[in-house]
Amino acid sequence: MIKVQFAARPERWTTYAPALKSAFEQAGLEVDLRRDHPPCEVGYVVYAPNSELQDFTPYTACKAVLSLWAGVEKIVGNTTLTQPLCRMVDPGLTAGMVEWVTGHVLRYHLDIDRSLATQDRWEPVVPPLAQERPVTILGLGALGAACASSLSRLGFPVTGWSRSPKDIAGIRCEHGDDGLVRALSRAQIVVLLLPDTPATENTLNRASLALLPQGARIINPGRGPLIDDDALLAALKTGQIAHATLDVFRIEPLAAEHPYWAHPNVTVTPHIAAETRALTAAQMIAQNIQRGEAGQPFVNQVDRQLGY
Amino acid sequence: MIKVQFAARPERWTTYAPALKSAFEQAGLEVDLRRDHPPCEVGYVVYAPNSELQDFTPYTACKAVLSLWAGVEKIVGNTTLTQPLCRMVDPGLTAGMVEWVTGHVLRYHLDIDRSLATQDRWEPVVPPLAQERPVTILGLGALGAACASSLSRLGFPVTGWSRSPKDIAGIRCEHGDDGLVRALSRAQIVVLLLPDTPATENTLNRASLALLPQGARIINPGRGPLIDDDALLAALKTGQIAHATLDVFRIEPLAAEHPYWAHPNVTVTPHIAAETRALTAAQMIAQNIQRGEAGQPFVNQVDRQLGY
Repeated sequence: MIKVQFAARPERWTTYAPALKSAFEQAGLEVDLRRDHPPCEVGYVVYAPNSELQDFTPYTACKAVLSLWAGVEKIVGNTTLTQPLCRMVDPGLTAGMVEWVTGHVLRYHLDIDRSLATQDRWEPVVPPLAQERPVTILGLGALGAACASSLSRLGFPVTGWSRSPKDIAGIRCEHGDDGLVRALSRAQIVVLLLPDTPATENTLNRASLALLPQGARIINPGRGPLIDDDALLAALKTGQIAHATLDVFRIEPLAAEHPYWAHPNVTVTPHIAAETRALTAAQMIAQNIQRGEAGQPFVNQVDRQLGY
Repeated sequence: MIKVQFAARPERWTTYAPALKSAFEQAGLEVDLRRDHPPCEVGYVVYAPNSELQDFTPYTACKAVLSLWAGVEKIVGNTTLTQPLCRMVDPGLTAGMVEWVTGHVLRYHLDIDRSLATQDRWEPVVPPLAQERPVTILGLGALGAACASSLSRLGFPVTGWSRSPKDIAGIRCEHGDDGLVRALSRAQIVVLLLPDTPATENTLNRASLALLPQGARIINPGRGPLIDDDALLAALKTGQIAHATLDVFRIEPLAAEHPYWAHPNVTVTPHIAAETRALTAAQMIAQNIQRGEAGQPFVNQVDRQLGY
């Protein structure tokens, strides 16, 4: 029986424990998964950055620490950790992002909010077809490209924009400053999937928001700093932007007094679009425990010098 | 200048007039589109069944009546109509249905209603992946098959059911009575796209609703009579069915006092999923006027004996 400690915030247990147990069983592993094994008996630690576990000294029998998240910046410098550390590379994260972005683009496209708000009258408004609804995706990395292809398959005319030139089948690819002007000027819905770098901060600001057609809608599952929040609030006030769905923020959780919460034309979602997914993450964890038990090298082991 | 009369309910004008004008222009047709030409000067009538126009006798110069809808049962027996009658075969109808069904399946899948209802607290609930959300589509005609393929491309495990056997790539196809039991027993979301025939009436009834896993969701963009409404209301009361989104009803518009309107777990939409779409319908109309002006046979001309 392999003793595995689940070191993450308590509320994760409900989501992850069943997925992990099922993945262990499917992998033929006999695992005792708990939150409170005696540290010296633990074979593997399943770890999330906000866990209370910070001192790995007593974990003398531990063969590896397996992170539930892709980002390991909060643990990689922990000098009490001498065991192999593996980060999460979760195929479910891309799939989940595609589902979330496609769902919210279709929500805007079909005006589902209006359907939900008019449950007292028969007032048919037929939405246009996707082919009449240009969508622009800022950022064409793995996530942006996958979302662009999904929306294109549904018939949306998709423009993608990235800093450097890209070529994706069925997507009108723009790049550079001129390309951003073209990409924004034709977008009824804009999806932000750029990385968070000094160059991308405030990509949507007063000037770039003004380039959009009036009444455009914004979806941000990328990073909070991509948007100048004051500029967005001003554009929502004038109607230049009709609605925004925001999943990420400069400070999370979003402060209770932030104007986004009560704004009638803003939907706040609590950073759920790009979360590691229990099902596929559990399969990755089980695979690494299998490898550890078989004496094989771990996959996605972090280079502690490089930091990832 | 070709005089075309728009004979449909006044509220259609806003949607269709711009689409028709644009389609005429793109087709190189010089058209004067109005709702009130003198009947004897009208060259073509664009027609919807609920129009006030019933007596075609004064339309002596009319070359064809072009229906905006696929169904012509309300006009096909009109003996004052001696001109060719063309029904609508609208590629946009299938596209629109796929968009609407995919949007509402993703809405249920991502629990977007919950997101919209919790705009006062940061409470992350990560949805499962589409691969964990089995969807069953009852009816595998042109619309059902297209929706099944769209959902399958997004990762949903899709089961389709039809009276007779079908074979669609990527879709688990069931048929017959035994197949219906299997198709329903594994569905978290059920989409109804069966035709309205004596054999399909009350396909979802007390017995078949009980076959679904508890908490299943129903989406009906097909036909009202496919559902036994009393049985659905009872299943919603017990929680056997968690939610229903209904676009079609036995009597439309749905009566103001119908319990569906105020039900917290029912979303009523006013028969908008499968409507003829202005953009593509206008292109079809323009094409037929072009053919009429060139002396070519009309496409989709109705056989008045057969009735379609």
